[in-house]
Amino acid sequence: MDPAADGLDGREIGVYTSTEAHHTVQRSAAVLGIGRANVRLIATDDHQRMDVDALREAMRKDVADDVLPIAVVAAAGTTNTGAIDPLRAVGEIARERGAWFHVDGAYGLPGILDERIEQLFDGLDLADSAIVDPHKWLRAPVGIAATFVRDRSVLHRAFTQEESPYLEGSFGDAAEARSSLDGMGIPYADFGVELSAPARGVVVWSILREVGREGVRAQIRRDNDFARHLAQRARESDSLEVLAEPTLSICCFRYTAREVDDLDALNARLFRRLVQETPFLPSATVVDGKFAIRPCFINARTRVDDVDGLADAVMRIGDELRATAPAPA
Amino acid sequence: MDPAADGLDGREIGVYTSTEAHHTVQRSAAVLGIGRANVRLIATDDHQRMDVDALREAMRKDVADDVLPIAVVAAAGTTNTGAIDPLRAVGEIARERGAWFHVDGAYGLPGILDERIEQLFDGLDLADSAIVDPHKWLRAPVGIAATFVRDRSVLHRAFTQEESPYLEGSFGDAAEARSSLDGMGIPYADFGVELSAPARGVVVWSILREVGREGVRAQIRRDNDFARHLAQRARESDSLEVLAEPTLSICCFRYTAREVDDLDALNARLFRRLVQETPFLPSATVVDGKFAIRPCFINARTRVDDVDGLADAVMRIGDELRATAPAPA
Repeated sequence: MDPAADGLDGREIGVYTSTEAHHTVQRSAAVLGIGRANVRLIATDDHQRMDVDALREAMRKDVADDVLPIAVVAAAGTTNTGAIDPLRAVGEIARERGAWFHVDGAYGLPGILDERIEQLFDGLDLADSAIVDPHKWLRAPVGIAATFVRDRSVLHRAFTQEESPYLEGSFGDAAEARSSLDGMGIPYADFGVELSAPARGVVVWSILREVGREGVRAQIRRDNDFARHLAQRARESDSLEVLAEPTLSICCFRYTAREVDDLDALNARLFRRLVQETPFLPSATVVDGKFAIRPCFINARTRVDDVDGLADAVMRIGDELRATAPAPA
Repeated sequence: MDPAADGLDGREIGVYTSTEAHHTVQRSAAVLGIGRANVRLIATDDHQRMDVDALREAMRKDVADDVLPIAVVAAAGTTNTGAIDPLRAVGEIARERGAWFHVDGAYGLPGILDERIEQLFDGLDLADSAIVDPHKWLRAPVGIAATFVRDRSVLHRAFTQEESPYLEGSFGDAAEARSSLDGMGIPYADFGVELSAPARGVVVWSILREVGREGVRAQIRRDNDFARHLAQRARESDSLEVLAEPTLSICCFRYTAREVDDLDALNARLFRRLVQETPFLPSATVVDGKFAIRPCFINARTRVDDVDGLADAVMRIGDELRATAPAPA
C-alpha cells in the first residue's frame, strides 16, 4: 500500500484539474493521503483551457461510481502557457457537486489588474480558496506564497496547534497587552503548517508599498505587452510561429521552416544553443505535443529590446541549424 | 467527519510520542490525515523523559485492538525542558513493532557535540528520520529546518513531482551539462513539498564554514554551561528553585518563598514584570504542573553577566511581589 500514490484506505475520492494544471496538485494529493492516482486530469480545449463538458462528465461518472468529488482546481494562468480556465463555469460545477473550488493563480492572478483581460477572471468570486505566489509576478524572493481562504475557520480546524505551555505560558492576556511580549495577537500559527516562520508578509507589504497598485498594474500590462509583441514579431516572420497565443505574459513559440522534417528536434537543439550562447534564458515546454520556446516575462528589468533580441536570436540560430537539418522524407 | 481531528476512514492507526513532545506531532498527524486524536501521548518519568514501559504497554494494547502502530516520535531535547528521551530503548520498541522511528532534535540535536552529554544521544543510529532546526541552536534565521532520512527513496515516493514539460523541457541531459542551465542535478524538488525554494542550505553552509565544527561545539558547551550556572545560582539562593535540572541549555526555575501560598500566581506576575521591565526575556512554561520561568540559552551574544542578571532580577521582583502576596491559609 502506497498512500502517496493510491491514497489511504476508505471511501474513494476524486480531485479534478486539467491536463495543463501544475503538478503540485498531484503532489498535494500525495501528501494529504488523497493519492496522486485520484487526481482526474480533465482535457483542455484548443486554447489549453479546461473543457467544462469533460469536467461535468468526469464528475457525473465518478458520482455514479460512488466516488466522492472533494475538490476542483482551476488555473488562473497555467504555468505552461498562461491559459485561464473558465472559472465561473468550473466553479459552478464544483458547487453543484459540493466540492471545494480552488483557483491556482500562483503565476497568473496578478493578471487581473490588466483591464484588457480582467473579464477572463470572472468567477473568481466563487473560489473557496485561491493562491498567488508573490515570488513570481510580484518579484518577491522565492519561497513566498499566499493562500486566501473564504472561511478562515477551516484553516484553524486543519492546522490548529494545540496549546503548548512554553508558548501560552509566555504570553499574557492580549486584551491587556502593553507590549508585543504580552499577547500573541491573531494566532496565525494556527492557520498554517509553520510555527516559527520568517516575516514573509513584510516583503510583500514593502513591495506593494513601494510600487503601489497602479505600479503593479503598469508592470503587469507591460509584461503582457511583451508577450504580445513577441507574438506579433513571430506572425511577421516566415521562420517563427506562435504555438499558444498569449493570454498573460507567456508566449510559446518556435522556429519553423517548411523543408525541415523534425521541428521538435531542431527547436530542442536551438533552445540549448540559445541558453548556452546568448543572454536570453527562456524556458521550454510542450504545447499540443510540439516543443515550444516559452519566455515568461516577469522580470522588472526586461525591455522591449530584450524581446526583439530573443526573436532575432531564435531566427539566427534556427537559420544556422536548418542548413544542417535533415529534409522531409 | 473531520480528517484533521479523527483521521481519514480506513484502518485504525496510532502514532506515539510523549506528553512533553512538541505539538507539531499532532499538527502533522492532522495534515497527513492520520488525525490528532490518533496521537498517543505517553507518560514521562520524573525527568520529563518518555516512560519506556508505558510506551511498550500502549503499543501492545493498540496492536491487540487491531490498531496499526505507524510511527514513534522521540525527542532529543524537548522544547519544554530540553529532556532527551531514552532513544535506544524507544527506537528498539518501534523497530519491534515495525513502526517508523523519528527523532525530533529540532532544538536539541546539536547538543550531541557536548561530550559531557553525548551519551544521552545513544540510539540516534536507529532513527529512520531525524530533524534539526538550524534556526534554533545554529542561529540561522527562522524558517530553516533540516530533515534527515535514512532511505532517500521514501522521500521520492512521497513527494515526487511528476514531469512538467516546462521544467523537463528546459533542461538537457545532465550527463552532458556545460552549464547549470543544462541539467537539473539531484532532483531535490522531488524530495520535499516545495518546488521553488530559497537557497536555505547556503545559510547553514556559511554558518558552519564560518564557525566550524569546533566553534559550534564551543558555543553549545557554553550555552549548556549557562543553564548549569543558573541552576547553581538557584541552588545557592533561598528564594529560587530549579524545576527541571538542565540537560541542554534550558533551565526551568522559579521564585519560591515558604510563606507564599500560590507560587504559580506569584511567578506568573513576576514573569510579566520581568519581560516588561527588564532586558531579560525568557519564555515561561509549566513543569510538573508548576509555572516555570524558562530561559533557553541559544543567543551567541549572551554572556554570563546576563545569566546572573536574570537570576538577580527574578529574586528582586519576587521579593517585591512577596510583600503583597497572600499568605497560606
